[in-house]
Amino acid sequence: MTQLQVLLVAGTHGNEVNPIWLFDEWSKSSFLINTHGIRTFNVIGNPEAKKVGKRYIHNDLNRSFNDASFLSNRSSNFEGSRADELVKLYGQAGETPCQIALDFHTTTASMGSCLVVYGRREADLALASLMQNQLGLPIYLHESDQNQTGFLVESWPCGFVIEIGPVGQGLLNSKIILQTKLILQTLMDQIHKVKELNNFFPKKLIVHRHIKSIDFPRDEDGKIDGYIHSLRQSKDWIKLKKYDELFCKSNGEIIRFEEDENYIPVFINEAAYVEKNIAMSFTKRELWNFKKQWKQSLIDLVHQK
Amino acid sequence: MTQLQVLLVAGTHGNEVNPIWLFDEWSKSSFLINTHGIRTFNVIGNPEAKKVGKRYIHNDLNRSFNDASFLSNRSSNFEGSRADELVKLYGQAGETPCQIALDFHTTTASMGSCLVVYGRREADLALASLMQNQLGLPIYLHESDQNQTGFLVESWPCGFVIEIGPVGQGLLNSKIILQTKLILQTLMDQIHKVKELNNFFPKKLIVHRHIKSIDFPRDEDGKIDGYIHSLRQSKDWIKLKKYDELFCKSNGEIIRFEEDENYIPVFINEAAYVEKNIAMSFTKRELWNFKKQWKQSLIDLVHQK
Repeated sequence: MTQLQVLLVAGTHGNEVNPIWLFDEWSKSSFLINTHGIRTFNVIGNPEAKKVGKRYIHNDLNRSFNDASFLSNRSSNFEGSRADELVKLYGQAGETPCQIALDFHTTTASMGSCLVVYGRREADLALASLMQNQLGLPIYLHESDQNQTGFLVESWPCGFVIEIGPVGQGLLNSKIILQTKLILQTLMDQIHKVKELNNFFPKKLIVHRHIKSIDFPRDEDGKIDGYIHSLRQSKDWIKLKKYDELFCKSNGEIIRFEEDENYIPVFINEAAYVEKNIAMSFTKRELWNFKKQWKQSLIDLVHQK
Repeated sequence: MTQLQVLLVAGTHGNEVNPIWLFDEWSKSSFLINTHGIRTFNVIGNPEAKKVGKRYIHNDLNRSFNDASFLSNRSSNFEGSRADELVKLYGQAGETPCQIALDFHTTTASMGSCLVVYGRREADLALASLMQNQLGLPIYLHESDQNQTGFLVESWPCGFVIEIGPVGQGLLNSKIILQTKLILQTLMDQIHKVKELNNFFPKKLIVHRHIKSIDFPRDEDGKIDGYIHSLRQSKDWIKLKKYDELFCKSNGEIIRFEEDENYIPVFINEAAYVEKNIAMSFTKRELWNFKKQWKQSLIDLVHQK
């Protein structure tokens, strides 16, 4: 049985600079975050991309973990090598094994602060429940999207993404830094309480389950031909009604939501998703019962049983 | 005497995409903007930078006009060549001579809509006065800054920059597109009225005169060590009081405004100015009397006397 170690990652995308700033600040003022004696490792996910102020060099690092499509030319691909390196250093079987990985991001969408959980791992859901209970954060459950795989935190036994916006790429913003700090501190507090077996676990969990993403309207040449309608801009987490406005096309046409579904849009107008053909994603809001085994799974992980 | 021709430029910075979008929209719906029969030429200032989603390829195009520092290696520099090309095509002595150049930009700063006027050319001040009288836009007078020269509009007899924010780089935003459209339409309306000798020229003009720019706090290695204080973020156009907060440093220190001057900050936290060592600029608000000769100068230009 080894001691619990937590991996904290900022700058997985090199132009998401606010968490990087917070880590710098923390390195200068060790009292900034109280880790309650838990050993943490702060890393810049993509230091090369950070240097040049870009999201990534060759490929999105946060789609480069265990992604078979990169395996053939992994060594000539910075993000492929970096993913391997991070797992070698901090993975479960790594030099400095960490059990929990927390990956701090920002978005240009008006999402506020939220957690992005990949799949339905029990320990993830337990820790996310604790966070939602403390701060009321929405939980975006990302699963079964074959177009989007290879996320960093999936290479650790437990962990999720912390996503905060809106803030432009490459731009420090006092509010975003403060929100990041609050979530990081609350995470450390809650993990500490799991060590002390002293948490309050809620009975219910609200999950925004990923259903699908939609692209911008396109013209005959495949060029984007539409922008987010003013009534949809910054309306993340707000349920769509049938015929709600989604996009304006350049010919003046309005594209509306025409499905008979209770969808809630997120990541509306995230700058980095344009290249992924994502204008926004649709989720369904679900109320889940908290399961006992989630709690046990998190406790076992933290106590290294 | 030739007919009046107006040059309209979008994408002088390739990642300022909203005016580019508006031009595309206009090209598909010719009725979108009423030019009142005035001949206009719409160009993408920096098409290469636009393709790659960057501000520029080698140098800021909007610092590349008549900039002696580039003259030596101008041909190997995309923006140097492009500046020459635009002047050759649309300059006063060009193939399709334009008398007025209007250059549409966006900013990540919370500036709202404003006009940036370079120097004190009479026709510029007359047209800016008309616009301020119509829409109440602030006028930012940029002059006598030796570190910032070679602006596009300076190569035409009359013209200024239209600057609208906040919006992230590379991000279409419905509100910004609408604001751009309103200003473009109002510009065409006012220029038309000058042709008809039918304008109302105001008696007074409020000018925010550029005084200087200030850098972010830096550490011993010259690395940025501070972000815009939360009380200053998005507070463009609001007068500073002595000891107002400007920056937070990573050690927790707050950097304050300590000058005995009535300064009004603008371009607070413009992402593209980080590389120019500009965290914000200071202006002084001045009330100027409108001068008759400004009006005459604009009328003469529009009527090609």
